[in-house]
Amino acid sequence: MLANDRSSSPMLTKVRVVLCDTQEPGNIGAAARAMKTMGLGRLHLVRPRQFPHGEAWRLAVSAGDLLDAARVHQHLADVTADCHTVFGISARQRRVPLPLLSPRQLGPQVLACAAAGPVALVFGGEEAGLDNSDMARCDTLVSIPSHPDCRSLNLAAAVQLICYELRLAQLESGTSGLARTGAPRQAFEGWLAALDAALADSGYYQNKNRELALEALRRSLQRAAFDRAELQMLHGVLRALRAAPPAAGKN
Amino acid sequence: MLANDRSSSPMLTKVRVVLCDTQEPGNIGAAARAMKTMGLGRLHLVRPRQFPHGEAWRLAVSAGDLLDAARVHQHLADVTADCHTVFGISARQRRVPLPLLSPRQLGPQVLACAAAGPVALVFGGEEAGLDNSDMARCDTLVSIPSHPDCRSLNLAAAVQLICYELRLAQLESGTSGLARTGAPRQAFEGWLAALDAALADSGYYQNKNRELALEALRRSLQRAAFDRAELQMLHGVLRALRAAPPAAGKN
Repeated sequence: MLANDRSSSPMLTKVRVVLCDTQEPGNIGAAARAMKTMGLGRLHLVRPRQFPHGEAWRLAVSAGDLLDAARVHQHLADVTADCHTVFGISARQRRVPLPLLSPRQLGPQVLACAAAGPVALVFGGEEAGLDNSDMARCDTLVSIPSHPDCRSLNLAAAVQLICYELRLAQLESGTSGLARTGAPRQAFEGWLAALDAALADSGYYQNKNRELALEALRRSLQRAAFDRAELQMLHGVLRALRAAPPAAGKN
Repeated sequence: MLANDRSSSPMLTKVRVVLCDTQEPGNIGAAARAMKTMGLGRLHLVRPRQFPHGEAWRLAVSAGDLLDAARVHQHLADVTADCHTVFGISARQRRVPLPLLSPRQLGPQVLACAAAGPVALVFGGEEAGLDNSDMARCDTLVSIPSHPDCRSLNLAAAVQLICYELRLAQLESGTSGLARTGAPRQAFEGWLAALDAALADSGYYQNKNRELALEALRRSLQRAAFDRAELQMLHGVLRALRAAPPAAGKN
């Protein structure tokens, strides 16, 4: 299992969850609870319809401290002024000229950005999502891959899902010795180097240009975009094949 | 971006979301909405305190059809009798003698199991989680890596997070070679069979479930959508590695 799960996670203290135009106070509380279950704590509210409100504290359950500390603003710009990067979250298919990330891609990227300064994750209101002027403050759009038959997640559920990805990224960065930025690429190259060494030992390159042959393998295999767990699995495969006695004539 | 996201996803129709001892009807509705946003549809309720109830339909928003079709039972066994695998979901740290998965590991595993028959994902009540007798019906426990300061997710938020992992697994399996101009499926399967044979000989499967381990490899590698020439190259790689003398201690 993942270790280090109570870590102070200094990166996550740089992350602000910003709820714009929230209509239901209960959703603010549920969002606070969702944040706290994933180790996030900085809640900002932009133009909430009703706050403070008892319903928020009721649904926050044990995350009332996040509501006590929440800051209320009139303009998104007041929250994002000193932010290094602003991510807008959407479950809709938006046509905006912004870089687009999946929630899974977001996690490591937020941690990398948080190393440089505060980061904002901006959620729009329950009905309309992010409006255009708020969207204009975002550097990057995060699209939740919801099903076309039912695109719109409950606000707190979306917060839960995004904060979960941040927590996973934080737990993974805590357990791996790799640098956060560009880690997937490095990890892939590490596996490719192991494959290269195994092939060199096996004589695979005997009648080949090693550099070109390796490049062909890199090109084919990197298309799969293996994640860390998959690369671990593939390291295991390679180890097993290398340790096995020769099976000439087979395959 | 991920293609094919409205796919009929026959695997997901085999997945039953089972809520045991739910106290708040609103949570049943919110869970139904969470399911529908991720393309799941089969909802089962075991001993709900109040159902049907207007609050459930109110919070389901556009997922009322899942509530209309939901089935109510007195015993978890009535839902799981014909299930191939039963996964219990928990945000607590449980000490139970069951295999433990993370939500991220769950997604692909559910799809693999669903190929063989119905699969149940079982969620306990809001206060106490799964009770011991329900836990005894589970084959595998899924632990949500929540923060120790605030372990307990809202029920519908937990359903959202688990269903999200299933949807991602389904989308990833759907972006296999199909859309690309890769080699025919058969050709890839031929190479995978050669890999499987090599791994069986090497002892790779010794402490693993061979079927699941192979399924994980298939899922990862098929994303690359190898063409015929690439598969020939990979057959060559496999032949070379198999023919090489053992290199214990390397890699």
